[in-house]
Amino acid sequence: MTQQATYNGNRTIEVSECQPQAPKADEVRINVAYCGVCGTDLHIFLGHMDQRVDMPQVIGHEMSGVVAEVGANVSDWQVGDHVVVRPLDPCNDCPACAAGHQHICQKLKFLGIDTPGAFQGSWTVPAHTLHRLPDDLPLDKAAMIEPIAVACHDVRLGEVTDGDKVVVIGGGPIGILNALVARNAGGDVLLSEVNPFRVKLARELGLAAVNPKETDLVGHVSEWTGGAGADVVFEVSGTAIGAETMTKLARTRGRIVVVAIFADAPKVDLFQCFWRELTMRGARVYEPQDYERAIQLAATNALPLDQLITERYPLSKLQTAFEQIASGAEVMKILVDTQAV
Amino acid sequence: MTQQATYNGNRTIEVSECQPQAPKADEVRINVAYCGVCGTDLHIFLGHMDQRVDMPQVIGHEMSGVVAEVGANVSDWQVGDHVVVRPLDPCNDCPACAAGHQHICQKLKFLGIDTPGAFQGSWTVPAHTLHRLPDDLPLDKAAMIEPIAVACHDVRLGEVTDGDKVVVIGGGPIGILNALVARNAGGDVLLSEVNPFRVKLARELGLAAVNPKETDLVGHVSEWTGGAGADVVFEVSGTAIGAETMTKLARTRGRIVVVAIFADAPKVDLFQCFWRELTMRGARVYEPQDYERAIQLAATNALPLDQLITERYPLSKLQTAFEQIASGAEVMKILVDTQAV
Repeated sequence: MTQQATYNGNRTIEVSECQPQAPKADEVRINVAYCGVCGTDLHIFLGHMDQRVDMPQVIGHEMSGVVAEVGANVSDWQVGDHVVVRPLDPCNDCPACAAGHQHICQKLKFLGIDTPGAFQGSWTVPAHTLHRLPDDLPLDKAAMIEPIAVACHDVRLGEVTDGDKVVVIGGGPIGILNALVARNAGGDVLLSEVNPFRVKLARELGLAAVNPKETDLVGHVSEWTGGAGADVVFEVSGTAIGAETMTKLARTRGRIVVVAIFADAPKVDLFQCFWRELTMRGARVYEPQDYERAIQLAATNALPLDQLITERYPLSKLQTAFEQIASGAEVMKILVDTQAV
Repeated sequence: MTQQATYNGNRTIEVSECQPQAPKADEVRINVAYCGVCGTDLHIFLGHMDQRVDMPQVIGHEMSGVVAEVGANVSDWQVGDHVVVRPLDPCNDCPACAAGHQHICQKLKFLGIDTPGAFQGSWTVPAHTLHRLPDDLPLDKAAMIEPIAVACHDVRLGEVTDGDKVVVIGGGPIGILNALVARNAGGDVLLSEVNPFRVKLARELGLAAVNPKETDLVGHVSEWTGGAGADVVFEVSGTAIGAETMTKLARTRGRIVVVAIFADAPKVDLFQCFWRELTMRGARVYEPQDYERAIQLAATNALPLDQLITERYPLSKLQTAFEQIASGAEVMKILVDTQAV
């Protein structure tokens, strides 16, 4: 027996015992070590995705673990391998898949949203979703690989190169990781964030950070770039003011990467897009090379992951974790130890 | 003596006699043959740009002509050369110029808006703005090269390649030229336009065209592309509905080129931009290679320019031309013979 945390609707998480699920021929069963709480999990907890999620559902996808059992057709993996899961199950049949964009498959199943997820002691998944970890990478840090891979994807699509002036709008976990990965890629990075706790944490990580409620962000960036504007802007806030500001920050022919999920269509200054020939590009999840890059960054201690993990809870406190994040508490990344009660 | 048409404010064009202006050392004086009426000229006529335009001002920039006189330092041009002018005068000093993007210089002077233009018999311009025409290219067709160059720039930035499914939203002169140049680049093109006269003209040019007031454009494009969506979408309408629709038409990783001038920031579905990893790119005016490509297309009769030139007026009828376009009359491109009274 192991334990699972299910989302039951109505802002309720329930922890219960369950049977590990034996892997089918092309599957692998993993003993989950840690699973982080993602912004998408919060959306689910808050009921925003009730139409998509079959309740009760085990959610969670930012995980690390150890292979416990392999299916009959699986030859690449062995019991004891340290792994993370890239939680994407494409149809391999739609036009997007046919064009090689399986990560944004038109019928994509996302593990932990459309199928059971990793807030449980034992998780059974398709073998094709696994990435191998070095044995000496601690599994708590490894649970950060999924959000790091998001940032690697964003920074890759933003084509950040050495010396680029980069502005990141929004300093939650993904915004901070975007800033850190862009800095690692050679970017000179400025983070814009309204939450003082997050601004302070970003500065402790050595990031230049401003609070646009206190500082004229557009004027600051203009001065910082000698009147040119930023080479790359990441919009990670998902706010109307972020969408309004992003076109004012980028230089002529600058690149804007739309990372955030906008529930409502914001106004976007298409005149500036035209006038300065800006490029705006949406970036969603990750491709396999982004996972490999994220594992490399974690394994080489290139990112200050310990400082981003502000809370570590047993599975029984997942309800508390969601409530803390929802209330705007001073937390960054909360990791759940799925083996602890 | 020659003649000029000036915009005097208050929707008024005045035709008067004037002295040809001798070229300075780095200038060339051109006897203008034809000058087309551009949408930007209409904006000026309607008073939308009164803050930018010094009145009275000769406007106009879609021209062709013959070199009449050259300045002391000019060695590349001779009296009698057939030419068009690329009406951009960059500062060569700002960050955009330093980065090689002179066409979107942060202090760009546009000839015919910020300086006198081509609705006159004799026009004196910097020699660096000239492009050479083949002697056998009729000068009336050559007056279409400036808007063709806009379309060449748009299609180049949209990276249209053989077999691409292309949707052009908006079928005015620039929209139609975008469609024709995209077709020439190998695209399979669909034009969306609400004006029945323009739809009819587009169809006479062999373009597939739909009226979105009569046809469900999104459903039509989905069916046409086997559920994938279009490879490239050109937004040339400058309307809120165009901005709303463009993100619904493009395939995953599709490309949207923002060609139109949006006076107000429209709502843009950044969720779709993220979800399908769309690229939206602004495209403004042209670079030298776009002019060369446009001259090549005109000189090889690759485009049905005769059918696009629906009216030919003497300079004295420029006021009438503007009033016709402003009233939504059944015209496409109006050419003005600047030597005729």
